[in-house]
Amino acid sequence: MKGNLLVGQSGGPTAVINNSLVGIIEEAMQHDAIEGIYGMVHAIRGLLDEDLVDLRRETPKTLELLRATPASALGTARYKVTNEDYERILDLLIEYNIRYFFYIGGNDSMDTTHKVANLAASRGYEMHAVGVPKTVDNDLAVTDHCPGFGSAARFVATAIRDTGYDTWAMGESSPIKLMEIMGRNAGWLTAATALAKNEPDDPPHLIYVPERGITMEQVVSDVLNVYDRLGYCVVACSEGMQDPDGHPLGEGSGDVDAFGHVAKGGVVDAVEAAIREASDAKTRHDKPGYLQRSFAALQSHVDREEAYRVGRRAVRAAMEGKTGVMVTLDRAEGPDYRISYGLASLDRIANVEHTLPKAYINDAGNGVTEAFVEYAKPLIGAPLPPYARLSMHPVPKKD
Amino acid sequence: MKGNLLVGQSGGPTAVINNSLVGIIEEAMQHDAIEGIYGMVHAIRGLLDEDLVDLRRETPKTLELLRATPASALGTARYKVTNEDYERILDLLIEYNIRYFFYIGGNDSMDTTHKVANLAASRGYEMHAVGVPKTVDNDLAVTDHCPGFGSAARFVATAIRDTGYDTWAMGESSPIKLMEIMGRNAGWLTAATALAKNEPDDPPHLIYVPERGITMEQVVSDVLNVYDRLGYCVVACSEGMQDPDGHPLGEGSGDVDAFGHVAKGGVVDAVEAAIREASDAKTRHDKPGYLQRSFAALQSHVDREEAYRVGRRAVRAAMEGKTGVMVTLDRAEGPDYRISYGLASLDRIANVEHTLPKAYINDAGNGVTEAFVEYAKPLIGAPLPPYARLSMHPVPKKD
Repeated sequence: MKGNLLVGQSGGPTAVINNSLVGIIEEAMQHDAIEGIYGMVHAIRGLLDEDLVDLRRETPKTLELLRATPASALGTARYKVTNEDYERILDLLIEYNIRYFFYIGGNDSMDTTHKVANLAASRGYEMHAVGVPKTVDNDLAVTDHCPGFGSAARFVATAIRDTGYDTWAMGESSPIKLMEIMGRNAGWLTAATALAKNEPDDPPHLIYVPERGITMEQVVSDVLNVYDRLGYCVVACSEGMQDPDGHPLGEGSGDVDAFGHVAKGGVVDAVEAAIREASDAKTRHDKPGYLQRSFAALQSHVDREEAYRVGRRAVRAAMEGKTGVMVTLDRAEGPDYRISYGLASLDRIANVEHTLPKAYINDAGNGVTEAFVEYAKPLIGAPLPPYARLSMHPVPKKD
Repeated sequence: MKGNLLVGQSGGPTAVINNSLVGIIEEAMQHDAIEGIYGMVHAIRGLLDEDLVDLRRETPKTLELLRATPASALGTARYKVTNEDYERILDLLIEYNIRYFFYIGGNDSMDTTHKVANLAASRGYEMHAVGVPKTVDNDLAVTDHCPGFGSAARFVATAIRDTGYDTWAMGESSPIKLMEIMGRNAGWLTAATALAKNEPDDPPHLIYVPERGITMEQVVSDVLNVYDRLGYCVVACSEGMQDPDGHPLGEGSGDVDAFGHVAKGGVVDAVEAAIREASDAKTRHDKPGYLQRSFAALQSHVDREEAYRVGRRAVRAAMEGKTGVMVTLDRAEGPDYRISYGLASLDRIANVEHTLPKAYINDAGNGVTEAFVEYAKPLIGAPLPPYARLSMHPVPKKD
C-alpha cells in the first residue's frame, strides 16, 4: 500500500543509533510503496507537536557521516505517552497518511510501538508498525543482544583497562579505583568490563551487578582482600548495586547537599565512603556517565553494522506486511559468531526487562563467568588493542 | 664517562608517557658510554627502596607495544622527597654508578631532578641529570607545551563533543550538561574542550578555568542564558573553578557524607546544585576523572611522537655533557606547526607553574579566545573526525 513512512528515535541515545536511522532511510528508498520518509523530532513528541522533518532531502554524504555520529540525530525524549495522546497519535498518523511506522528504542519504546500498532489495527487503519531495538542496557527480551550495547561495552572495557593501568602505576599513592557503570536494573554493561581482562588478576578485579544483592560489608571485605593480595584494586560498580533486600546500596546514608537536599551522589560515593571508613588506602572513582553511551570513537564495528541492518530489516518486514513486531538479532549455535535477523511479536517484548542470567554471575557475586565472556566478546568488534607491561627483571641490590 | 643510566616516571601518568621511556631506552642503546639501563619502580621510591629493574632485558616487541600503552609502565608515586632522602639518593646513585639520570614528570619532578643535579655537582660526583617534561596539566614553564597534554586535550574535546550531541538529542528531557575537567590550578585542559567546536554555537557553550575567578551567580546566569537561547547548554568546568576571591567555587557549602565527613563532591556538584536551585531544567554531569589522562585509544599522534622524541633528546643532551636541564618543545613562528627540541636550565622550571595567559581567556571569563584555539589545535593531532547533523527540512503541518 502506498503511503508515507515515519521514524523516531526514543529513549537514551547510543553511539550507533543513527545507523538504524540510516538503514531505515536507505532501505525505504528502495521501495516504491514508500512515498514520504518523515522523521519525528524528539521522538513521539515530534509527532504530537507535528514537528516532522523530510528525510528524503538529506544528502548521501550526510547519511554516510551520520553512521559515525553518536546520539540521536532526530533528537529523542523521555516522555510517558498518555491514553489521550494515543488517540491523537492515531489521528495524526491518519492525517499524514503514515502507513509505515518505525520506532528505534528500548522497552518503553517497544510498548509505544505495540500500542500504536494495536490501536491502528483496532480502528481498521492499515499501518505497519515495527520496533527497532536499541539500548546500551542490553535488556530487551527475545533478541540475543541489542544494538548500542556492543559499543558501550567496548567503551567501558577500554575505560576500565586504561584506568586499571593508571591505578597500578599509582601504587600506594592511590591504589583503589571504583568506576560507576550505567544500568540501573540490568548488569550487562557492568559485566562487560570483564572484557578488559587478559589474565585473571587483570582489572577489573571485582564486578558488582544489580541482579545479585550484596552487603556493603562484603564489598569492603572483597576490595581490601584484593588490595592486600595485589597491592591495588579496580572495581566496576553498577549504578544499580543493591543490598540483599533489593534496596539501593548506600541508600539512607543521609547525605545532604548545599541546599539541604538529599544528595544523589550515587552508589560509588557510598562505596568509597565505606572503604575509607575501613582502610587508609586512598580510594578514587571515575564516573564516565553518558560518555558510555555516546563515545563514537569506540564504536564496535560489529555493533555499528548490526544497528544498520536492523533498520533495513525493519523496513523489509513492513513491506512484507508485518506489524506489531520487533527485529531481533538471532545468534547461530556454534563456535563462530553468526547473526541472522528475525522478528518477534511486540507483546513478548514490550515492558519485559531481560536482566543478566544467574549463569553469567560468579558464585561470590563479585564477578562474571566465562560463559558471559564468551557471549559478550564478539559484540565489541575487534579485540582491544594489545598493551605491554615491563618484565621487571630486578637489578641486584647493593646492600 | 662510562656508567649506568637510571630513569623514573613520576607524578600523574599520561596516555603517552611510556613513549618518553622508550625514547630514552632506545637512544641509550646507541651510546657505548651507557652500560646498565635501569628503571626506578614507582619513581624515586624505587631508588630509595633499591627496587630497580634492568630495562636492557625488555624485548623490542615490548618497547613497541609500550608506545601504545597508557600510564607509567615503571609505576609512579606521589612522594615528597625529604632532605634526608636526598643524601641517601646521592649515596645510592654513587653506589650503583649512575652517571645518567632521567626523570620524566611535571613541576615537582623537575624540582627533584634539579636538586639531584645540584647535590651531585656540589659533591663533585660527575652525573648528568636531565628532566623530561610530562603533564596533562600543560603547566611547565619555558616549553611551548608538555607531552601528555595533546592526548588529554584530544580526549576531553572528543568527550565533550560526544556528550554535547547526546545532550542536544535529549532536548527538554535533560538539557544542561556539566563536565568536570582536570587541572586544579591551570585551565589548559579545560580550555582544550573548545577544540570540539566547529560552529560558534556548538558545545561546549561555556568554559570555566581556574585562572579567572567567577561568582556562582554569574555561572548560573550564563548557563540559563545559553539554555534559553539554544534549548540546551554544555559546560566545561575546571575542577579548580574559583570565586573572584580565589576560593574554590562552592567551598563551604557544608556538604557532608554518610559518615559526617565534609563531602569532596567537587565543583560540578556545587554548580549543579546551584542551577537546580534556579531552574527546573534538568541538569546532569559527567566526571571522566582519570580517563582524561589514561585514554590510550585517543593518543594524539603528534603528542605521542613528541613524547618519544623528548626522551631521545634527553639522552643526547646528557651525552653532550649537559646536566640540570629539561628538554623543551620550541615552536617555530609561522603558519605551520613545527617543533624543535631545546634545553632549559631547571632553575627556570622547577616549582614554576605556567598557567593560562589572560590572552587565551575571553572577556566574559566563560570561554577561550581564537588565539588559544590556534595554539592548541595542532597538539591534538589529526582533526576530530567529521560528524553530521540532519538538515531538518520541515514537513508542512496539516493543521
